[in-house]
Amino acid sequence: MPQTQHVEKHFTASERVRDVVIGMSDGLTVPFALAAGLSGAVTKTNIIITAGLAEIAAGSIAMGLGGYLAARTDAEHYASERARESRETVEIPEEEKREVSELFEGYGLSGTLAKKAADEMSKDRRRWIDFMMRFELGLEEPDPRRARTSALTIAFSYMAGGLVPLAPYFVFKSMAEALLGSIVITLIALLVFGYVKGRFTVKKPLRSAWQTALVGGLAAAAAFAIAKFIA
Amino acid sequence: MPQTQHVEKHFTASERVRDVVIGMSDGLTVPFALAAGLSGAVTKTNIIITAGLAEIAAGSIAMGLGGYLAARTDAEHYASERARESRETVEIPEEEKREVSELFEGYGLSGTLAKKAADEMSKDRRRWIDFMMRFELGLEEPDPRRARTSALTIAFSYMAGGLVPLAPYFVFKSMAEALLGSIVITLIALLVFGYVKGRFTVKKPLRSAWQTALVGGLAAAAAFAIAKFIA
Repeated sequence: MPQTQHVEKHFTASERVRDVVIGMSDGLTVPFALAAGLSGAVTKTNIIITAGLAEIAAGSIAMGLGGYLAARTDAEHYASERARESRETVEIPEEEKREVSELFEGYGLSGTLAKKAADEMSKDRRRWIDFMMRFELGLEEPDPRRARTSALTIAFSYMAGGLVPLAPYFVFKSMAEALLGSIVITLIALLVFGYVKGRFTVKKPLRSAWQTALVGGLAAAAAFAIAKFIA
Repeated sequence: MPQTQHVEKHFTASERVRDVVIGMSDGLTVPFALAAGLSGAVTKTNIIITAGLAEIAAGSIAMGLGGYLAARTDAEHYASERARESRETVEIPEEEKREVSELFEGYGLSGTLAKKAADEMSKDRRRWIDFMMRFELGLEEPDPRRARTSALTIAFSYMAGGLVPLAPYFVFKSMAEALLGSIVITLIALLVFGYVKGRFTVKKPLRSAWQTALVGGLAAAAAFAIAKFIA
């Protein structure tokens, strides 16, 4: 099945990109917004560094471990659905053949041809089940190494993203300078990240760049406004 | 195509559940961990409330707006791939028919039957393209209202989740009491949330319950350790 393999490869690559995007967009945005928000409420940069690093630790573990468990859940869901389909091809083969036949008819095949195709397919049980998993249920077989890779990719992307907005708070002692530095460096990072992300996905890098920066900017502005209002 | 509609309904429902899960698991976990982390570093609960609310604002906007843009990107990706497939059925119809035929052969159909099925299918161009989108590319047609629904679901789930661990810091003036209250109430919330989530997904609610609580607990412990170490 060269087609299926091709699709799976494509699928895996885009999943990896998606993991980096998930981790890094939140990593750049949330610690940035938290730091900006606290800048409006506290007077010492070391509280912001503490809160920022605590947030990065919490966020990367929550997202990474969350990604790990989500990928494991996907794999188990696939296995249990596959076991069910497998059982059904033994217990109610005529019913299952009829489902394949109806599926083909739905895509414009004549009744006789659809029935014949379902009959031929059912001779190889493994491929028959492959077909039903993919087509009837719309499920791809997950890569078994995916759960761990996904967890680490998301977690490290989050950390890498999160250290960018915090860096100026390490460098500058003055809150105003640190905040300004964080805004400048993070907006640049968001624009670059959005641009690259946009090239990978919809091929509209410029629009992706300003949209990504906008999300980060809005989140930071909201956090700043709320913190200012309370403090 | 009753099958396709059935699958799409199923898909949409599980996507909604997934949005609630995405928002609420991070909402329960990250503000909880941030608050616990700051408890080890600052002496006043009002700094924790400020940081927590700033984090909730930042996180819900980042995740909600992020979800909105991701769903829009999915929809555009589908539209552009569909346009390409549509063009190819006009420009290189024989090539495209051969792809469908090879796909069928990969699932065990004989060469002649596969060719015949591809020929019949190609008579109805819309269904032919439907088939290729679904099978060759593995893409589902996204629900057009999904982007906005997804954004709001994720954002509100994040807020609802995030207010749980913060609540004790509003009630108790003593840091130790607030931290203890936050740990107790959040672990209970994580267990209940994990249990319900587990029923929706892999039908293993108990395992899901302790795993979800473990992620939150680990994130909070790491944040606490880091904040304590710095302060």
